Amino acid sequence: MTALDRLRSLARRVLRCLEHDEPLEVPKRTTSNIRYDPERRVYTLGDDAYRRRPNTLRGAKKLAQMMSVAAFAKELVETGRSATLRELYYTSEGWDLPFKDQRESDAIVEDLEAVLGLKREEFGIWPEEDGAAVYGDLLVEEDGVKIHAERAGISGYNIPPNVDAVELLDCGAERVIAVETMGMYRRLVQERAHEKLDALIVGLKGQAARATRRLLRRLNEELDLPVYVFTDGDPYGWHIYMVIRSGSAKAAHLNHELACPDAKFIGVTATDIVEYDLPTEPLTEADRKRIEELKRDPRYDSEFWRRELDLLARLGKKAEQQAFAKYSLDYVVEEYLPTKLEELE
Amino acid sequence: MTALDRLRSLARRVLRCLEHDEPLEVPKRTTSNIRYDPERRVYTLGDDAYRRRPNTLRGAKKLAQMMSVAAFAKELVETGRSATLRELYYTSEGWDLPFKDQRESDAIVEDLEAVLGLKREEFGIWPEEDGAAVYGDLLVEEDGVKIHAERAGISGYNIPPNVDAVELLDCGAERVIAVETMGMYRRLVQERAHEKLDALIVGLKGQAARATRRLLRRLNEELDLPVYVFTDGDPYGWHIYMVIRSGSAKAAHLNHELACPDAKFIGVTATDIVEYDLPTEPLTEADRKRIEELKRDPRYDSEFWRRELDLLARLGKKAEQQAFAKYSLDYVVEEYLPTKLEELE
Repeated sequence: MTALDRLRSLARRVLRCLEHDEPLEVPKRTTSNIRYDPERRVYTLGDDAYRRRPNTLRGAKKLAQMMSVAAFAKELVETGRSATLRELYYTSEGWDLPFKDQRESDAIVEDLEAVLGLKREEFGIWPEEDGAAVYGDLLVEEDGVKIHAERAGISGYNIPPNVDAVELLDCGAERVIAVETMGMYRRLVQERAHEKLDALIVGLKGQAARATRRLLRRLNEELDLPVYVFTDGDPYGWHIYMVIRSGSAKAAHLNHELACPDAKFIGVTATDIVEYDLPTEPLTEADRKRIEELKRDPRYDSEFWRRELDLLARLGKKAEQQAFAKYSLDYVVEEYLPTKLEELE
Repeated sequence: MTALDRLRSLARRVLRCLEHDEPLEVPKRTTSNIRYDPERRVYTLGDDAYRRRPNTLRGAKKLAQMMSVAAFAKELVETGRSATLRELYYTSEGWDLPFKDQRESDAIVEDLEAVLGLKREEFGIWPEEDGAAVYGDLLVEEDGVKIHAERAGISGYNIPPNVDAVELLDCGAERVIAVETMGMYRRLVQERAHEKLDALIVGLKGQAARATRRLLRRLNEELDLPVYVFTDGDPYGWHIYMVIRSGSAKAAHLNHELACPDAKFIGVTATDIVEYDLPTEPLTEADRKRIEELKRDPRYDSEFWRRELDLLARLGKKAEQQAFAKYSLDYVVEEYLPTKLEELE
C-alpha cells in the first residue's frame, strides 16, 4: 500500500469514527508500552493505545490536528515535496487549529507514524540533518540520477533522509563496516579499507540517524551483506551499536524497519583496551552511571556484554577508536580490523 | 612555495636558531595581538610574537615539539595522507616528547600554521567534520574524479576539508546563496532555487567550517560570483554572516585566505521580521547579551548594523529563516529571495 493509500484509508477510518461516535485508537509510545521481543531481537510496541474520542473537546481537537497534518502530508506526497518538522509547525500558523508549540505538532506527526505504520520520511516530513556518509563499491539511483559511492568525492555519498526512495543498483563489496566517528571514516577511506577489506565504509557521525539505520538494514536484508559496527570503547559508543542492532525505545513503532538484528560488534571492547594496550581516559561519573544503566537493559543481557561492562567498570578507563594511531595511522586497517573480522566471521 | 618547501625552509630556520642561539619568532594569536584591518575588511595578526629560545628548557621543549609535528606533517604531505588533530595526539604517544594533553598538541599545530603561513589542511592535519553541502551547476575535480554538484545525490556535493585541492572546473551559476540551516538548504534545492535564481546553493550547517569559508572565498575570487548569506534573524545567525565576511578572531593568521569581504547579507533582518510579520520567539537573556557584544564589535560598526541591532533589541523578538513557511513552502524562493536579491544587486 502506498503512502497515499494509507492516508486515504486513515481518512475513511476517522470518518467512520465521527459517524459512529467511536474513538480512534493511536498506539502508545510510552516506555510502559514498549517491550523487547527476544525472538525478533528488537524493541516493539505493546497493545496500549490512546483513544481519541470525537465527542470530547480534547479528542476532537487531537483528531482535527491529526487530519490537518495528514492533509499537509498528502499534499507533500502528491507534489513530491518534503518539509521539516519545523516548517510543518510554521505552516500550521496559517491553519484554523494552530499548535501551541512545536512539541505538540511533533507529537501529532509521531501519532500519524504509529497509526499509518509509516516512517514520517515516507509521507514527506524529513529531518534537518543528513544521514551518514558511505564510501565503497556501491551504485545507487536517486530520482533518476545514478551515483557511485566512490565517485561522489572523498567525503563519499551522503545518505539522504528518504533512503527508501534510493535504489540499490549494484554492489561489489562483501560486507559493511560502520564506524562511529568521521575521523575513523576518513582514516579507513584513506587507507583504502574499502578495497583491502572488501567493504562499504559507513561513517555514522555518532548516534546513527534513522536514515542511516534504515540503510544498514537494507544493505543487510536486500544485499545480504554482513554489517559490522566499530565504535569508541565506552558506554556511549557501545550503545550506538546496540541501537543499530536492536532499535531505540523511542522509535519502537518503527524498529521492525530500522533495526538490524544481525549487526555484529567489532569493538573497541574493554578486552581490546587491555590486549592492545590502548591510550585511555578515565571513566567519568556519567560513564559509570551509564554502565550501570546498560547492565539493567535487556538488550545487554548476554554473557559477552555482562563481561565487557564489568571489565570496563573494573578498568575505570575508556578508549577512543582513534587510539590505535598510537601504533601507526594504518594499524587499524592492517592489523586490528582484519584480526577482528576473522574472529567474527 | 609548496607545503613541503615551507616545511624544509622552517627546518633550516630552526637549525640557524640552534647554531646561533637565537629565538624563533612565532606570531601571537591572542586577542591583544589581533586587529581589524578596515582597508582589507578582515581581522589580521599584529606584530607580537612568542620567542622560542633554544637555550631555555621551555623554549627547547616547544621547538622540539614543533619539529616533531613538522616531521609528522612532512610525512603526511609526502605520502598524500592526512590525520586528525586527535590522531596526531595519539601518534605522539610513541614519540620521545609526548604531549601532556591534546590542547598542547593542538596549540603546536596552530603555531606551525602561523609560522608556515599555511592552513593546517595544507600540511595534512584535517578536521573531523565535513564542510558544508553545495547544490547547483558546478563541476569540480577531486583527486582525478570529476563531480557535478547536481549529480551527487539530493544532498549535494560535500565540501571536503582540503578544499584547496579541489579544482573548480566549470560553473553555470551567476551567484552563490549560502544558508544557515540544512532545512533551508533542502527547501531551496526542492523549490529549484538553483535554477530559478541562477545560484549555487550552499548549506552552511550553522557556523561555517573553515573549508566552507575557503570555498566561498574561492567562488567569489576565482569565479567572480557574488556571495549572499541568508541566516536566522538573531545575533547568532548574523554572526555567521559576519565571520564569513570579516573572518574570525581565532583564525586571524588565516583570515586573508578565509574571509570573503564582498559577501552580502540577505537577512533575516530585524526589519524583515516587522515587514514580513514573521512568527517569532522572544529574545533570551543570552541573545540580549550577544546583541550588546556585537554593538561593541568593530565589524558591526556601520549604520546598517547599528540600526538592525537596535531594532532587534527593541522588538525583543527573533525569527528563524524557516518562518517564511507561514505563507507557503515556496514563498522564500518565489517572493522573499527575489525581492532581497533585487535590492542588493
